[in-house]
Formats: sequence, structure tokens, C-alpha cells
Amino acid sequence: MEVPRSSRGAPIMIDTQSAYERIKNYIRKTPVISYKNFYFKLENLQKSGSFKPRGAYNKILKNLNNLNGVICASSGNHAQAVAKVCSDLNIKNVKIIIPENTPQIKVNKIRNYGYEPIFYGNHLNESLNYAKKLSENENLLFVHPYDDLDIIEGQSTIGLEIENYDFEYLFIPIGGGGLASGISLYIKEKKPNVKIYGVVSENAPSFYYSFKSNKIVEIEPKETLADGIKLKYPSNLTFNILKEKLEDVILVSEEEIKEAIKWAYYNLGFILEGAGAISLAVFLFQKVNISKGMFILSGGNINEHVLDDILKL
Amino acid sequence: MEVPRSSRGAPIMIDTQSAYERIKNYIRKTPVISYKNFYFKLENLQKSGSFKPRGAYNKILKNLNNLNGVICASSGNHAQAVAKVCSDLNIKNVKIIIPENTPQIKVNKIRNYGYEPIFYGNHLNESLNYAKKLSENENLLFVHPYDDLDIIEGQSTIGLEIENYDFEYLFIPIGGGGLASGISLYIKEKKPNVKIYGVVSENAPSFYYSFKSNKIVEIEPKETLADGIKLKYPSNLTFNILKEKLEDVILVSEEEIKEAIKWAYYNLGFILEGAGAISLAVFLFQKVNISKGMFILSGGNINEHVLDDILKL
Repeated sequence: MEVPRSSRGAPIMIDTQSAYERIKNYIRKTPVISYKNFYFKLENLQKSGSFKPRGAYNKILKNLNNLNGVICASSGNHAQAVAKVCSDLNIKNVKIIIPENTPQIKVNKIRNYGYEPIFYGNHLNESLNYAKKLSENENLLFVHPYDDLDIIEGQSTIGLEIENYDFEYLFIPIGGGGLASGISLYIKEKKPNVKIYGVVSENAPSFYYSFKSNKIVEIEPKETLADGIKLKYPSNLTFNILKEKLEDVILVSEEEIKEAIKWAYYNLGFILEGAGAISLAVFLFQKVNISKGMFILSGGNINEHVLDDILKL
Repeated sequence: MEVPRSSRGAPIMIDTQSAYERIKNYIRKTPVISYKNFYFKLENLQKSGSFKPRGAYNKILKNLNNLNGVICASSGNHAQAVAKVCSDLNIKNVKIIIPENTPQIKVNKIRNYGYEPIFYGNHLNESLNYAKKLSENENLLFVHPYDDLDIIEGQSTIGLEIENYDFEYLFIPIGGGGLASGISLYIKEKKPNVKIYGVVSENAPSFYYSFKSNKIVEIEPKETLADGIKLKYPSNLTFNILKEKLEDVILVSEEEIKEAIKWAYYNLGFILEGAGAISLAVFLFQKVNISKGMFILSGGNINEHVLDDILKL
């Protein structure tokens, strides 16, 4: 696969087909629904309610020999995905580091998969650093949410499940950029004429300004409904891939995310989380003038109370 | 509202409009999605994942004055709904009796709403009897899953949300019969020409044989994917309503339920539980020759492993 070079000049290699063979009996092949001239890829219907298991299965299955245990840090979909994957693969020694302020409902979802999370740090960055250190001290496989080629390779399998549809534009939500990197690497190889757009929350716009200024810009995110993509900065790895593969990056406001969640509920019958609905906002508010579009709906894990407040608007 | 008489000759009275005023700020108005000439009412997108909160809100809100506490017995959707409703209404003294063999995942869902369930009995019937006795001893409001006019009245509000659609046939899953009783009472009043069919699992066919023989027939149910409607017999109340309001009752096999769950996932993008998909099976396998149909999809709380096994078929 023709791929961009990393900042150090090494080629970025992924093998989507092999990854798919590796994980396909574990993940769900999620549906693609057509609506007028458009397609929606429903990763909200993936196991654990988001696209994240694709990367986690790929990373862990690649390292299953002599595996001493698994560690990750996340307060949301990535933690649930790693818990789900480890539970399915019957891995006992699993450490899931979560920030101390993680909401009870998210804690319970991890417990439901049979693991007791470890509370550490005020912010995800502190949890991540602690997890990384612990992974070295205790010889545990560190499963990063996005800054890892095996994770990116896993997420790229979505590309394989959409390539046979007829689309010219593709819209992917971006937080850390692992999902967008994986899909873009695959689709730009197979369908080079497709124009790919990253979709970013106005309240967590680091990737937008990084892309526009062609260097990584660190921005403290504000509260956003798209908490699944609320990050301070992309990684070198994902930034270097995406600056080459993306046509452009689109900003979406909180109001637009709310409208997209509400519209998806009433018109499609889907429950989406903020990050899962953000590419739909591009569609609803016609932010790009397109005909044949494919929209990645990345997850559906929204708090019931948050959803109910939005549905009443 | 013109209603049938109970077996003792008393008129069966419900007031759907008043119930709707009572509960409408608490429940979700769920979507109706059109597909070809047909409509699907998505109660799988109701709070807690099934239609059950409508009845529970109605029962509890009607009895909120001097309420000493709430008690119910259920291993599934009804227990989750009562827990959700009590949590929303900030009721502290809540006893949820569940059979001793209730799966961990269902126990956790109750705990997620902040209540510790009480294990009692080998079968739901034993849990129900215990709950009834305890409700009298401790002066707690007993919230029965279906054998209660306030519950039926709450479920009837679905009728109000579908009446303005253009349909001639209506399909409703039947276990205890509370959902079907409520909707039928309302719709037969407002749209008397609509033909209403009850849909029953072959493995829990008590209502089918009761309807056909015009008397309540007790049948021990077998395992069924439609565990939400797995019951030994209907109540006098629901049987008396339904024998008058229904056109006919349709049996659906386990294989057909599986196909309906799979079809809904891939073609509509919905995750449905067995009972929630059973009326879709009528549609898919053309068990009745119809044109304009409305199908009630009653819930979406399916175990992830069960769903994954079905999707692989």
C-alpha cells in the first residue's frame, strides 16, 4: 500500500487485508444504510457501541503469543472496547486506567465486562502517562487509543467494508485521528479520486488548526457533546498521515451536533453519541456541496440524560 | 372510550389522553420510520430500551401522593423500566424482586439505575407472589408488569403516537398482553377499521391457544429468543380485552425471530431483542397478506453474545 512517510522518513505500512482476516471473526461487519444519494456506515452498531474494538482486537491478537497482560487508559469508548476485547479473548491480567472524575455510568460499563478499573489522574493525559509507565514496569501490552500503527490498521478495516459502495466524498470524525488515518490510508489506495474530509468539534479544534497551519497545534478543549473526540492535540503519526490524505477539515458547532443527534433519532431511528453524529451534521447543514457521500457514524454511547435533554429541544 | 367488559361484567375504562398528559414529559416520543408501504414504531428507542416505562410512569405518577415505596418483580425489561422510572422520580424505597437465576448483565442494568435487586424464587411466578405479599406487608405500591389497568393505560399512549399514520393493519407482540391491550383499546376506538394482530412466540404459545379456544390455556413456555414475552398464561384482564379487539393471533418460530433480528440489523440499522423483532417476522415472512401495515418493535435489550451468534448465521 502506497503510504506517506512519517516525520522521521520511515514509510508508514499497514496491511488492511491481513488485519481483516485476523479480526473478522471477532468484530461485527456493521451495516451501511442508504438514504437518498448518501450512505451511512453504522459503527454505532459495532460491539461495545463504537468502532474502537477493530483496533483493539488487531493490536491484541497480533501480540497474543507470550502476552503477560494488557493495559490501556481511557474514560470512554476505548476503555469499553479494550474491556470487551479482553473479555472475549479471556485475558485475565487487564488494567484499565481511568481519570478520577470518570462518570459512574462509564465505570459500570467497564465493570460489566468483568474488570475493575483503576482510577488515576485528573486528566486523560495523566492516566495515559501512568498506563505507559506501568506497561513497562509490569511488562503489559500497552493499547494506545490512536497513536499506534496496529490500532490504525485495525480501524482501516472499515475502509474494506465500504469500498464497494459508490461514493465520491467521505466524512470521518477526528479526535486523535486513528479512525480517520486508518480509513484514509485504505480508501486513498483503492479509490484515489474519493475526497476525504475530517470532521472536528469547534470545542476541541486542535486538529483543525493543526491541519490549517501544517503543524501540530496544542489547544485545551472545552466541554463538547463529542466527548469521544475531545483531545488536546493529534499525534505525529496520525497528523502526518492525515495532512497528506485529507481534502480538508470541517468544524461543527455544539448546536449542530445536537441537531444531528436529534435528526438521527427521529428520522433514521438511530441513537448516536456526539462524536458519532458529527459527520451527519456536515450532511444536515450542507457544509460541503456534495452528491455521492459516505458518512462514518462512529459510535452510539450517549448518556441517557444527555440524549433526553437533546430530544426535548 | 367504548371498551369490553371484564369477566365480572365491570366496564374496562382507560383514559389514554389523560395518561399521555401525565407521562409525556417523562417518556420519549419514539420515532415512526417508514419503509416501503409500511411503518415501524420504534419502542426499542424508548428510555431503558423498551416500551415498559410508559406503564410504569403512569402507575407510579398516579400514586405519587403518600407513596411509601415501590415494588415489582421481573427479570428483564419491566425491572429496568421500574428502576429507571423510580430513579427519575427520585423514589428511594424501591424493591425489585428478581429470580435467583437472573443473568449478571440484567442484574447490573438494575444496579446502574442505583438500586440493589432482591433475589427470590426459581421462576418469575415465585418472585411475583413474593413481591405481592411484601407490597401488602410493607405498604409498597405493587407495579405489575401487565395485569393492571394503569399499566395498560400507560402502554396505550403508543396508540396516540401512531394514530395519525395511514395504516390498515397493526401487529403487536404479546406476552402478558399489557402492551397489546393498551394499544388495541385506543386504536379500535379511533380507527375501528384497523385490523389488529397479536404476535406470539411458538415457544411461549399460551396466548395463541387461549385465543383460539376462547379460554385461558396454561402452557409451560420453552426457551425462546423472545424472552420478553415468555409467559405461562395471560391474565383475565388482558385476555378479555384482547379476545374482543384482535383480528387474529400469529405464531412465529425461533428461526423466524432470528432472521428478523438479523434483517433489522443489516437493513434498517436497528438492534432489536427477540420480542422486539417478532412482529417484523410477520412482515418478512409475509404471514398475513397486507398492504398498509404498522409494526410495533417493542424493545432492543438483547445480550451482545446472543446478537453476535445470530449475526453470524
